[in-house]
This record gives sequence, C-alpha cells and structure tokens, in this order.
Amino acid sequence: MKQKCLTESNVNQKLLNIQYAVRGPIVARAAQIEREIQKGAEKPFSRVIRANIGDCHALGQKPFTFVRQVLAVAACPALMSCPDIPDDVKERVKEILDDCTQGSVGAYSPPAGLTIVRRHVAQYLTARDGVPASPEDIYLGAGASDLIKAVLTLFVQDVGGRAPGVMIPIPQYPLFSGTLSELGLTQVPYYLDEESGWALPPSELQRAWSHADCSVRALVVINPGNPTGQVLSRDNIEEIVRFAYERNLFILADEVYQENIVSKEFHSFKKAMHEMGAPYSAMELASFVTSSKGWAAECGARAAFVELCRVAPRVLVAFNAARAVAQCPSVLGQCVIDCVVKPPAPGSPSYTTWSRERRDVRRVLQQRAAAATRAFNSLPGYFCNVIEGSMFAFPRVDLPAGAVRAAAERGLAPDEFYCLQLLEETGVCVVPGSGFGQRAGSFHFRTTILHPASEFAHMLAAITNFHHQFLKTYSLSCLTDDDD
Amino acid sequence: MKQKCLTESNVNQKLLNIQYAVRGPIVARAAQIEREIQKGAEKPFSRVIRANIGDCHALGQKPFTFVRQVLAVAACPALMSCPDIPDDVKERVKEILDDCTQGSVGAYSPPAGLTIVRRHVAQYLTARDGVPASPEDIYLGAGASDLIKAVLTLFVQDVGGRAPGVMIPIPQYPLFSGTLSELGLTQVPYYLDEESGWALPPSELQRAWSHADCSVRALVVINPGNPTGQVLSRDNIEEIVRFAYERNLFILADEVYQENIVSKEFHSFKKAMHEMGAPYSAMELASFVTSSKGWAAECGARAAFVELCRVAPRVLVAFNAARAVAQCPSVLGQCVIDCVVKPPAPGSPSYTTWSRERRDVRRVLQQRAAAATRAFNSLPGYFCNVIEGSMFAFPRVDLPAGAVRAAAERGLAPDEFYCLQLLEETGVCVVPGSGFGQRAGSFHFRTTILHPASEFAHMLAAITNFHHQFLKTYSLSCLTDDDD
Repeated sequence: MKQKCLTESNVNQKLLNIQYAVRGPIVARAAQIEREIQKGAEKPFSRVIRANIGDCHALGQKPFTFVRQVLAVAACPALMSCPDIPDDVKERVKEILDDCTQGSVGAYSPPAGLTIVRRHVAQYLTARDGVPASPEDIYLGAGASDLIKAVLTLFVQDVGGRAPGVMIPIPQYPLFSGTLSELGLTQVPYYLDEESGWALPPSELQRAWSHADCSVRALVVINPGNPTGQVLSRDNIEEIVRFAYERNLFILADEVYQENIVSKEFHSFKKAMHEMGAPYSAMELASFVTSSKGWAAECGARAAFVELCRVAPRVLVAFNAARAVAQCPSVLGQCVIDCVVKPPAPGSPSYTTWSRERRDVRRVLQQRAAAATRAFNSLPGYFCNVIEGSMFAFPRVDLPAGAVRAAAERGLAPDEFYCLQLLEETGVCVVPGSGFGQRAGSFHFRTTILHPASEFAHMLAAITNFHHQFLKTYSLSCLTDDDD
Repeated sequence: MKQKCLTESNVNQKLLNIQYAVRGPIVARAAQIEREIQKGAEKPFSRVIRANIGDCHALGQKPFTFVRQVLAVAACPALMSCPDIPDDVKERVKEILDDCTQGSVGAYSPPAGLTIVRRHVAQYLTARDGVPASPEDIYLGAGASDLIKAVLTLFVQDVGGRAPGVMIPIPQYPLFSGTLSELGLTQVPYYLDEESGWALPPSELQRAWSHADCSVRALVVINPGNPTGQVLSRDNIEEIVRFAYERNLFILADEVYQENIVSKEFHSFKKAMHEMGAPYSAMELASFVTSSKGWAAECGARAAFVELCRVAPRVLVAFNAARAVAQCPSVLGQCVIDCVVKPPAPGSPSYTTWSRERRDVRRVLQQRAAAATRAFNSLPGYFCNVIEGSMFAFPRVDLPAGAVRAAAERGLAPDEFYCLQLLEETGVCVVPGSGFGQRAGSFHFRTTILHPASEFAHMLAAITNFHHQFLKTYSLSCLTDDDD
C-alpha cells in the first residue's frame, strides 16, 4: 500500500507547534471522565466542573432577552406580528434588514460587515472615548480570533533580511502563541510583573525587545488581562505607547474584556493615544472587541470587530483582499454586535429587562471576583492578585519539591500535574499556567469564576480540600524521600 | 513625522498578490454607480443588476420557512410556546439545544461542531453515497472558504527542498487562487476543455503536472463547475482519481453545488472512489459542502462542512490544533447545516411547505439555465456550454480586434473592457473571465442566472442589445482604423 499523501513529516510543521491549552490534554481528560461517569464509573465526585474556558453561557449565564429577540425576528421576520415582541426589537430588526441585500440575513454582507452595524460600532467607540471613530475603520469578523489572525497576517514579511517577530505578554492568552506559531511569526515574550498587580513595566518591554533575535514589528497588549485579570493604569498605558513609538511598533490592543470590569476604570489605547497628542495620536493601532465577552457573552455567535486606526491605505488594500476571499462574517453574528454596541435606550420597551439582566451579570462578576481572590489568598502557598477585570482568576501556587519530583517522573510540568490531580480527585477542570506562560519556577492555573453561586462555592471548597491534601501528600513524600 | 509601521513594501507581500474578481474593480464601479444614481445622476438605466456573486437571497430567493423557524426558536426558545411554530421545528430545535452546553446557542460548540449536527451530516452523506460516513470525519466551518483554506494550509511545507504546489482548474473559482496566493502555495493550473463541455481530460492533468516547477501535493476539482457549470461524468471522475493515485495527490473536491443540478446526475468523489475499490478506495479525500449553496442558499449564515476521509491521525492533530484556536463556527450557522442535511421528512408538519419551496427553487434554476444557454448561443460570436449545474453561465465571447485594441489603450484586459462597457451602458454587473482564468486569446464572463423572471429577461435583453451595439462600434472602428 502507498504512503499517505499527508504525513506527520510532510504536513505543515508550523501547525504541529500549536499549543492551545484552553482545549488541551487536561480538557480532553475531563471529557473522557464525563464519558466514564455516563457509563457508570465510580468517581469521588458526581460531575466535572469545567472552569477551563471563558464561556459564560456554558457556566449558566442566561442570554439577554433583547439580543435573542433581535436574532429571532431577524431570522424570521414573520415574527414581527407576534405581540410578545417589543417595538424596539422590531425597529432594530427593521433597521438592520433595511441594510441587508433584499432584506435577508441570508445574503452576504460586505466583507467588512453591514454598514449600519459598523456605523453603530463607530458611535459606540465615539461615546466611549470622546474621540470621533469612523465606520470606515471598523471591520467585523468571526470572533476576535479571526480578526487577530487577520491583522497578525499583515506582519508575515521579513524586514531587512530578518524574520518578523511580535511581542506578547507572559502570561498570555494562547490564541496569540498559537496564531504566531501557525503564521511562522517569532514570539518575543515580555513578562508581566505579578508583584505589582500584573503591571507592564517599560523596562521589561525594553529588555525583551533588545534580546529579540528578529525584526520586532508589533506589540500585543491584553487589557484587561487574560489570564491575569488586571486592568492597566492610565500611566502604564502611556508608558507602553511611548515605548511602542520609540521602537516603531504597531500596537495590537486586545481589549475584549473592556466591559467585564470589577473595579478600576478601563482606559482604551485609542483614547490614551489621542489624549497624549502628537506624535502618539498619529500612531497606528488595532483594537479588538468581541460579543463573546462583555455582558452579552454570546460566544456561539462568533462575532467581533476591530478598529484599524491610521493604517496606510495600501496596507488596507491587502487586508481587504484577504477579507474579501472569506466573503463576510455571519450576518446574525453581526446582529449581536449591533445589540452590544447599541443596547436598549432608557425609556425604550426593552430597557427595564435589559438593565436588570445587565445588573445581574455585573453583580455576579463582582461577587465571584471578590470571593475567588479571598479564597485563594487564604490557602497556604497561594497568591492571587486582586481581580480587576476579565472573568478569570490566575492564582500562583507554591508546589512542594515532592510534587515537582512526582510530576517529573510522569513527564508532566508541575502545574500540569497539580491540575490533573485536581481534576481526577475533584472533577474541577482548570488550565495549568504553563499553557499561558509564567516565570520559570513559578506555577499557576487559570480558572473561570462565573459559575452559579452554589457550584462556585463547591468548586472553591473542592480546591481548598484538595490543596490541603495535596500539600500533605507531597510535603510528606518529600520528607519520606529525603529519609531514604 | 515617522514612517508608518506597516507600509506597502513591508506588509505581507503575499496578500498584495490576492485577486478576487468576484468582488473586484468592476463590482466596486457598480457600487459607485449605485451611489451616483442615488444622488440623481442620469444613466441609461434605472438601476444596477448585480450578477457578479452566487448569492441567491440577494437575487430575490425567499428563505425556506423551516430553516428560518428553526433559527428563530433556537435563538429564542421562549418561542416554543408560539402556536405558529410547527411541532417538527420545535423538536428539531430541542434536539440541537440538547447538544449545546447549557442548552444555549451562545455557548461555544466543540471546534469541529456540535455532535448532533455532525451525526446528521454523516447520515446525509451515507444516504447520498450508500457508503458509511462517520461523524468523526466531519468538520463544520464558517463557510467553505474557511474550510478550504484550513485544508490547504496543511500543504504549506516544502517537500524534498521543493516548494509545495496545488493543481487548480482554469477557469476556477478565485477563492482558490486567492487562498493559494495568501498561503504562498504555487498554483499549478490545468485547463478544462470548453469544446467537450468543460470536461477534465487526464492528458491535460498530466501536461500540467509534468510542467510544474514545484512539488505538486494536491489536486483541486470543482464539481459542479464554478464558473463553468458542468457536471463531471462518472467516467471522467474515475480518470481523475486514477491520475491522482498515480501521482500521489490529495484530492480536494469542491462539491458545493451538488444540490444545484439542472440535468445530469451528480457523482461524489467519495462514492466513485469507494466503488472503484482498492487501491482507490483507500485514498485521502477532502470534500466540501456549504449551506450558502444548495437549495437553502443561506450565504449570510457562514456555514459549511468538510468530510476528511482517511487522513492520517497525526495530520488530524495538526488540523485540530489550528481549528481549536479559532474556537468554533457560528452555532446558528450549524443549525442551518442541520436543516440542510436533514430537511423536513414526508408527513411532518413542515414538509408540504418545504417541498413546495424546494420545487420552486429547482424550477427557477432549470428555467434560467435553459434560457441563458439559449440566449447566449443565439448571439453572434457567443458560445455557451449547456449549464448542467451550479448557478452560473460562463459564455465565451469573440471580441473584434478593434475592441481588443481599445481595451489595450485603456490598460484593460479585453473581457474586462467588455464587462465594464456593459456595466456603464446597461447597469448589468458581471465578472470578466480573466478573474477566473481562461485560455489565452479567449474571452468570457460569468453571470449569475437566478434573478427574478422579469429582471432576468431584462438582463438578457440588455446584454443582447449591448452586444450588437458593441460589435457595431468595434467592428466599425476596426474598419475605420484600417482605413486610416
């Protein structure tokens, strides 16, 4: 028999380098355990608690009524006559369908998205920043992942005979490392400072930049942080902008958690650059927002937008060409973006329900963030910065030498070993810090915090009990080993 | 002022090579004309007729009731209690939502798609081919463009020091040339034989393969043809399979128009390979289907699937890693796929409406295909193969020497000049053959044929009048020039 056409050795090797821990081996093991439980296997727990992915609906958040009514009527305009549908929903759908070819969400939109949606996005950004935004700078996409990949693709070009590189934070969201791997862009990691609330020191940017063995072309900043949950101070943003200006770096601002704020004010890069004035206000910028995060948290809709500020027209020609080949993002997804950037106005029929739902979502985030920070900081060997934004906790865990040794014996990173044990013994599925990157010798994990109250309490209790038991086992085993 | 970070000379040069005529300069000019008309400009026509893109809803096809009701209820399950919603719609939505995490289309699905949808796809393929299909081989995506790019990405790897190449038909759908440009894969063009109904002669495959200055790794076949509208005969498919086997080529079968059949039976590559037996039945294959085409024609939903047959497990690891980074395709889009592969069964409440809608769509395609073939073949200098499938006509037009000269004076390809004149004088927007590729010295254009009856008749009349006038002008100008 002939060899396969595509083999491990002749397939695109860059794809083999992709690591995406958010859906990595521990998550695969969680799915396997779920199947074992279904088949009646005995476990020390009744079900797996998935805390590996920032997916609010999967954690029980209810969809927003306004968003879903808009989707239903946009899909099926016959529902316009339904008495249960509020007038502002009907008006919104009419406004969107008027901009769809032949009034159908089944027709392609322009590759960058419907004009009406891009106009509403621009209005939203203008109100957010007090700086005029233009619909011409807005591109809708199939989730932030789609748009971030599209923008990073622009940099795949050697400069002066040197390979292109992109600065990314450590810890980072592995979409970045995964996409850079696939595109063959060199990762230039800079470390966030855990001791000062995951701040981003310019000296560290400088260190990372000067050690890079490539042509550094762009700087990724994730604010609010994922997995780290910090919200950058205005001063810190200015320092970053100045650094990028001096080094001629294009800033990619992943600002997808800007509506998931616990405390502290969110400052957009766009606004900061504008207020800093020339020359910073003339710098290029790509800022990403998605309806998978924020209050709507409609991950399944695969919808997002990027604002491309001050990008050269000839560069946009290249960007537009690549976008056109993919046709357009989901038109119903674009409807979700429209709802997110233009929620029901005070006084409109849907406002009361929307604002109650909005308040509930905000309250849950604030309660869980406080409870998680408190619980983790009360555990021996744990340290957790105050969660200022996002929907994650990223505690650091000191692991005893015995655990490090036990992990090595199993060919696992110590934090991977810890998370795997946690899963096997409690059913709680979190993602090891090694999946995001961390300072050598430090160990973390990322957990979502938006579970329903009772499940969240159960999860924290399970982690607490597990950790005490783990310490006992591996501090003892360490002593025992030393006795040998 | 500093130079931009991203400039025409340092942006990814591969993106600058992308040509996507379906949304190219003539289409941009059409949009401009629309704006001019809106502003009150005088034109020899009242509106632009867009015949450039295979978008049935944009041409007035009405959405299928069942599909849209499923979408509406999936988005807004409160509508389950609505008396207007048939029971089979409710049952279908329940079945899908049971497979969504927490019953919400707002949660991420697995990267390959919901299990229930993949199972229905496998049942559909099994019924189509009489060959068992497995849900494990099915991957859902954000349109066929997304999946074709994902599969082509696997081949981006030099083999034995030679750059990788992919065979594509000429004429082809420019998604292929555009994606190959972006990925840096070498195009190895083979020519379809217009004289024998756009058949695909193995001798031509052999010629193209042996002249390729790269490592040819894959063979793209578009069946039914786009833009060419032929349906490959079973014998021709067998010849292609044998050729691919001998050359160790991976077949990518773009079979997205398999439900848009006018006459002649559609044979899938999968079934043909299976029935040919060993060794052909063991070959790798990727076959693409989308809900943007077929009867539903929900382009805006961005939904499609690929069946990856017999691909090596380690290769799938790479494929899955890249897919996981993008999270998943739109969950409402996945609902559309579910409806398409499992339409209402005879006897179910939605069946009568669905089958009437289905019959209407089929009738329109058959009438328009016949009318287009007839009309184009009646014009002097036109030749148009019988349209057997797809939703396009791709007539060849002999252009007088005077027109070729006039085009050259304007820096345009002759067919581009012809289409631009057609647009300016009649408002009819079609895509020049040069956007798809054609034999040197031959000129074509692609037009959609699914317009409403009166618009379609108007379009054919406009092209007819224009062509006679064009011939007169440029045959005369040719004579005049000769007289000079």
